[in-house]
Amino acid sequence: MNILYDERVDGVLPKVDRGELLKQLRTALPDLEILHTTEQLKPYECDGLSAYRVVPMLVLLPEHLEQVQTILKLCHALQVPVVARGAGTGLSGGALPLEQGILLVMARFNRIIEINPEGRFARVQPGVRNLAISQAAAPYQLYYAPDPSSQIACSIGGNVAENAGGVHCLKYGLTVHNLLKVEILTADGEHLTLGSDALDAPGFDLLALFTGSEGMLGIVTEVTVKLLPKPQAARVLLASFDSVELAGRAVADIIAAGIIPGGLEMMDNLSLRAAEDFIHAGYPTDAAAMLLCELDGVEADVHEDCERVEQVLKRAGATRVRLARDEAERVRFWAGRKNAFPAVGRISPDYYCMDGTIPRRELPAVLRGIDELSTQFGLRVANVFHAGDGNMHPLILFDANQPGELERAEALGARILELCVAVGGSITGEHGVGREKINQMCAQFSSDEITLFHAVKAAFDPAGLLNPGKNIPTLHRCAEFGSMHIHQGKLPFPELERF
Amino acid sequence: MNILYDERVDGVLPKVDRGELLKQLRTALPDLEILHTTEQLKPYECDGLSAYRVVPMLVLLPEHLEQVQTILKLCHALQVPVVARGAGTGLSGGALPLEQGILLVMARFNRIIEINPEGRFARVQPGVRNLAISQAAAPYQLYYAPDPSSQIACSIGGNVAENAGGVHCLKYGLTVHNLLKVEILTADGEHLTLGSDALDAPGFDLLALFTGSEGMLGIVTEVTVKLLPKPQAARVLLASFDSVELAGRAVADIIAAGIIPGGLEMMDNLSLRAAEDFIHAGYPTDAAAMLLCELDGVEADVHEDCERVEQVLKRAGATRVRLARDEAERVRFWAGRKNAFPAVGRISPDYYCMDGTIPRRELPAVLRGIDELSTQFGLRVANVFHAGDGNMHPLILFDANQPGELERAEALGARILELCVAVGGSITGEHGVGREKINQMCAQFSSDEITLFHAVKAAFDPAGLLNPGKNIPTLHRCAEFGSMHIHQGKLPFPELERF
Repeated sequence: MNILYDERVDGVLPKVDRGELLKQLRTALPDLEILHTTEQLKPYECDGLSAYRVVPMLVLLPEHLEQVQTILKLCHALQVPVVARGAGTGLSGGALPLEQGILLVMARFNRIIEINPEGRFARVQPGVRNLAISQAAAPYQLYYAPDPSSQIACSIGGNVAENAGGVHCLKYGLTVHNLLKVEILTADGEHLTLGSDALDAPGFDLLALFTGSEGMLGIVTEVTVKLLPKPQAARVLLASFDSVELAGRAVADIIAAGIIPGGLEMMDNLSLRAAEDFIHAGYPTDAAAMLLCELDGVEADVHEDCERVEQVLKRAGATRVRLARDEAERVRFWAGRKNAFPAVGRISPDYYCMDGTIPRRELPAVLRGIDELSTQFGLRVANVFHAGDGNMHPLILFDANQPGELERAEALGARILELCVAVGGSITGEHGVGREKINQMCAQFSSDEITLFHAVKAAFDPAGLLNPGKNIPTLHRCAEFGSMHIHQGKLPFPELERF
Repeated sequence: MNILYDERVDGVLPKVDRGELLKQLRTALPDLEILHTTEQLKPYECDGLSAYRVVPMLVLLPEHLEQVQTILKLCHALQVPVVARGAGTGLSGGALPLEQGILLVMARFNRIIEINPEGRFARVQPGVRNLAISQAAAPYQLYYAPDPSSQIACSIGGNVAENAGGVHCLKYGLTVHNLLKVEILTADGEHLTLGSDALDAPGFDLLALFTGSEGMLGIVTEVTVKLLPKPQAARVLLASFDSVELAGRAVADIIAAGIIPGGLEMMDNLSLRAAEDFIHAGYPTDAAAMLLCELDGVEADVHEDCERVEQVLKRAGATRVRLARDEAERVRFWAGRKNAFPAVGRISPDYYCMDGTIPRRELPAVLRGIDELSTQFGLRVANVFHAGDGNMHPLILFDANQPGELERAEALGARILELCVAVGGSITGEHGVGREKINQMCAQFSSDEITLFHAVKAAFDPAGLLNPGKNIPTLHRCAEFGSMHIHQGKLPFPELERF
């Protein structure tokens, strides 16, 4: 499948003289590696969201800050769009290339500059892998908290661009909560520092604004992240339920009991069976839904919290509650969860991963709604998600080779996201908007709000050269897509009537 | 003392026809209370920072959203600057009026719209007092965490504008970390929602950008804050030290031990004696410095943490460590700290409060530097601050009636803030930049960074009508002030040589 970036609707891309650009790049940066043959470019045609594919005009692989600066200045002068890419693990097509733009691959900026145990921070280049930071900090009993499932491969620069989350975000926050400082280059090659080494910075909070801006405001060239002390102890409970709704209610009960678990994840029968077949984690394949609840901290507290959570789970109707008997089993329990996406990939030719976030209290209603929509559209949906944050990942199973199934999957996905918005939630929790959810942004925001986003974008990048066509839709696109703005359930949404 | 807003340097204020504005306001909003006589206007000439005073052109006291919207549209049409004000407790002159502008007082928006114990949030109008939220949530065993010392009087709208902190921010974060959603009106009266009821929102993080923007991007009309469960138990330890440096090192040791106290405050001899004379809190008046360390959470943990902290404090050289024997003493210990500013006000005709934030590890060096600067300028400095966050509040004692003392105090204050910037810190932790620290912004940021701030401001308020002349200096001002940008100690700073 090869869906081209919709140039007609957004109409922001100037026509670029590829030959002229290549010539000027070679002259200005003779040492820069440039990929330009079809064969070389093909592997870069998509990121982790393979449903969209576009072969970029050129792929550039810089190794030094000065190279990036020169590239940006040159592209700015020639009005060439620039899409930045880290490890290419993104799930919303944020790093999807443009036919008329360069792909700026930051993977070679992979140096850990400093681990500072006293100040509890790490200063790293953007291409450093998420897990590598924790590995480098491990000798000091420190770690970097956000842990996307792709943490073995994804880069910290990409994490900043997408404001990545992970299973431990409920307790430790998203990427934005774990950053001190980011160095960036703007579209015209200016070098700026956002944030500071102290806990607060004066002026507008550009660090928070930048985090999650999906490569539209600047290129990350250095990141200073906070490091946390490793919890003394971590235990995980696995609870089985006879229905997803009961499991959803149990989540609310745990939080209501004043406990903040290190992780609180839910999987329904379809996803837990897929994971079990793949990883043999020891999951209860007869359960309609299961919860994984991790407690971490000081040994004595963890012990006490485990007992309290077990009581809450049983009162909430868990048919069985198991404590991982040792560290090996704990790791296995998590391995099943972290591999749930590829596991579902084994039972369906294609799947489409949603990333809606809802107020936690709406979990049971939304799970029921997804179930109804699944029946209505005739497609299976596997639910596996960060229950504690209300960050859902319904996986829509389909077969792209069956005529009409892709379109049906996309339509179902759109309905699910609109349902999330209608209950006061949002269309993305941690994967970003990228190319994939750009139409749903029209449901999330009013035209005044979208206009403001564009004005903020223009403050950083007046020429609109950085990652155009992602994240923020044009008003024109929203008009074509249909007037969809749903203000927290105030506009009619038939599914909601029945909840 | 009556220092006028420096119109010459910033030159952004148009000349306004006061009579015409008054006429149009009365026609459009016959029910709106308007203060316009000198007698009525005088009480609004300053906020909590009384060193700067300007009588506003008009004071408006709206009660409904529609009134605010009409006021903004009218001011926009007539190009009249608008300064918003909550309770007027701000400490950096953020709500300092303009001679040629209206003062928009939001104090009458004082309704608590909803306390939602299940969703753990409160929806309130901007004029609601900080403490009133916790009081309304108390029946559900919930509270709102950020607690500025002025919490009995300050409004949540002002807290959002200044990204207010408090003694518990080390553990629970600043205002920005405790918000879900803010409703605003832009300069031209558009109504926007920033953030969502879910834990993350797509698009750029405008909620974080807006928080702490000091009334320059829009007017807050409604705030949804997170509520937290009240800690089961809270105990406070008071430790005495023979030097401020030893106390500074003990702070780092506590954090290094992996303990996150609910509050961790330091007071030096000058400030603790002033507080003791005023409040009779039971402070050790012979100590060179003292630390207050509060541990909160589940009963068993608090008990254990107290023991661990006591050991750390003793190893760090504390001459005495006392546990508040009961709740009454705990409250008294905090009352002394929370009244430290007025207490210092009793021992000096005037004082000037700084709000620099530094990386925690730099505490001993910066305390030593402040001591040297104090001797050099011949003015006493009392240190009382949020040690755990590295957020310092040096109070410079002076007598404005002694010729030259104010100027010397200001010069000393500027040196202290530059010292904070030079060690990688910032010129404000929680009080904001406002009018007071606008020159020091030139030290904190490069001209590229300041230009970007202005572009972001223009994205929200192209005409520059909201609180002009605060928070972000013009490049012209920085040029007049002198080229001061200090990039984290990289530029020469003589005091640093000796540290």
